[in-house]
Amino acid sequence: MNADLARLSPRELRQLIRRGDYDGHTSGLGQRHLQANIVILQKSWADEFLRFCVLNPRSCPLLDVTEPGSPYFEKLGTDVDVRSDLPRYRIHRRGRAFEEVTDIGEFWEADFVAFAIGCSFSFEQALLDAGIQLRHIEMGRNVAMYRTAIDTHPAGRLAGKTVVSMRPMKAVDAVRAIEITARFPMTHGAPVHIGDPALIGIADIAAPDYGDAVPVRADEIPLFWACGVTPQAVLAEAEPELYITHAPGHMLVSDKLYGEV
Amino acid sequence: MNADLARLSPRELRQLIRRGDYDGHTSGLGQRHLQANIVILQKSWADEFLRFCVLNPRSCPLLDVTEPGSPYFEKLGTDVDVRSDLPRYRIHRRGRAFEEVTDIGEFWEADFVAFAIGCSFSFEQALLDAGIQLRHIEMGRNVAMYRTAIDTHPAGRLAGKTVVSMRPMKAVDAVRAIEITARFPMTHGAPVHIGDPALIGIADIAAPDYGDAVPVRADEIPLFWACGVTPQAVLAEAEPELYITHAPGHMLVSDKLYGEV
Repeated sequence: MNADLARLSPRELRQLIRRGDYDGHTSGLGQRHLQANIVILQKSWADEFLRFCVLNPRSCPLLDVTEPGSPYFEKLGTDVDVRSDLPRYRIHRRGRAFEEVTDIGEFWEADFVAFAIGCSFSFEQALLDAGIQLRHIEMGRNVAMYRTAIDTHPAGRLAGKTVVSMRPMKAVDAVRAIEITARFPMTHGAPVHIGDPALIGIADIAAPDYGDAVPVRADEIPLFWACGVTPQAVLAEAEPELYITHAPGHMLVSDKLYGEV
Repeated sequence: MNADLARLSPRELRQLIRRGDYDGHTSGLGQRHLQANIVILQKSWADEFLRFCVLNPRSCPLLDVTEPGSPYFEKLGTDVDVRSDLPRYRIHRRGRAFEEVTDIGEFWEADFVAFAIGCSFSFEQALLDAGIQLRHIEMGRNVAMYRTAIDTHPAGRLAGKTVVSMRPMKAVDAVRAIEITARFPMTHGAPVHIGDPALIGIADIAAPDYGDAVPVRADEIPLFWACGVTPQAVLAEAEPELYITHAPGHMLVSDKLYGEV
């Protein structure tokens, strides 16, 4: 990580990205401001997706939604243009990752609606600030994510199972982590499950469906949080003709601090 | 209040109401379960209203939204039919209260979308349970509500000022009330303002725009919470051709407890 990069304000970082001078991941950038998952849909899918998010706030905490056709997130900061201010995007066609790009100006359509969804980067910072160690970060791995048996609340053509991320902790840290994350519903809130993975349909904790495996020690309890991959998995199943998301780890960095929303 | 009525479960109460055997207010009924403000809109307004709620979660915490055309709230309980399960409704035409009815079956349209919005009845119960006295309840009055200078985040044709409810407290209770209500974002969450009413555009605390005036004593601080009247005021200004709401105090009683959502 370039130390100069880490010193940039969210706005300075977005301007660098907009000019095409940075297209890397955003972990640790933006001076601890709230980062967001992005989903962009045509109006014919946007209304159902908005309802899906409202009905499933643990997986899909909505930070902002644009007016149809507008690329600006008005709540997240000044001059936040979703067409250019993320380092990398994925253009999906019929549910499959199709193309990775650094600017979506040429793909923008007059009826696009953009959604900003809370991201676990922010709650992990809150846990680290409380002195709670996170195994996957210590090991330099991605967090372990699992498709569960927990149904989402369906909305029209959108339905499917909840995806969770798992972090193992000793009991004392587990209780504290629940207290802390419960305070931030906009970054997925409190865990949806703790303890026995089988109870939520996870057959093998050593074999995550997304991310990297992380060991759970004998004196630890696994904590499972609803994960922003849920809406992406649901969209991949529903197969809209065209939609756009951030590329994994390449998030929108907002002007908000996580206590602000 | 009929003591037998107060002993009914939410489901038993809704069945009584559905049969036409009760059309009174719901304050204190439903065994402490979550009650909801209701707004029903045609699809041509529903998408904007959904976005408005998402952008203004303090005023409009969304508990549930129906599929277009469906009268059932799937998240709020078993067999919750919005056409018949509230004691009283108001049918609004072009923004004006038009007619008060006890059943809306004959008004139901194939593209109606119903919204359930969190209600202050539930957070007031949490405050009373913590031993915090509420002046308007002691005095047998409605809570005092004010139109403020705080802009809502607009969504399409929906825009306007935030309406707040005010409860005066001594400092020690005020701090505790903030702690408690912060834990329940689905019933308006923490206050949006405390102290000097002029700072949010309230010229005369003795002259509320809705509800009844309640005195603020010299050793008290007024606390202002975003209020579910906000969406109704915004709709009244936008003047949709037709929409339906609960009649004041005649709420939907759900099967959920307030810690559940």
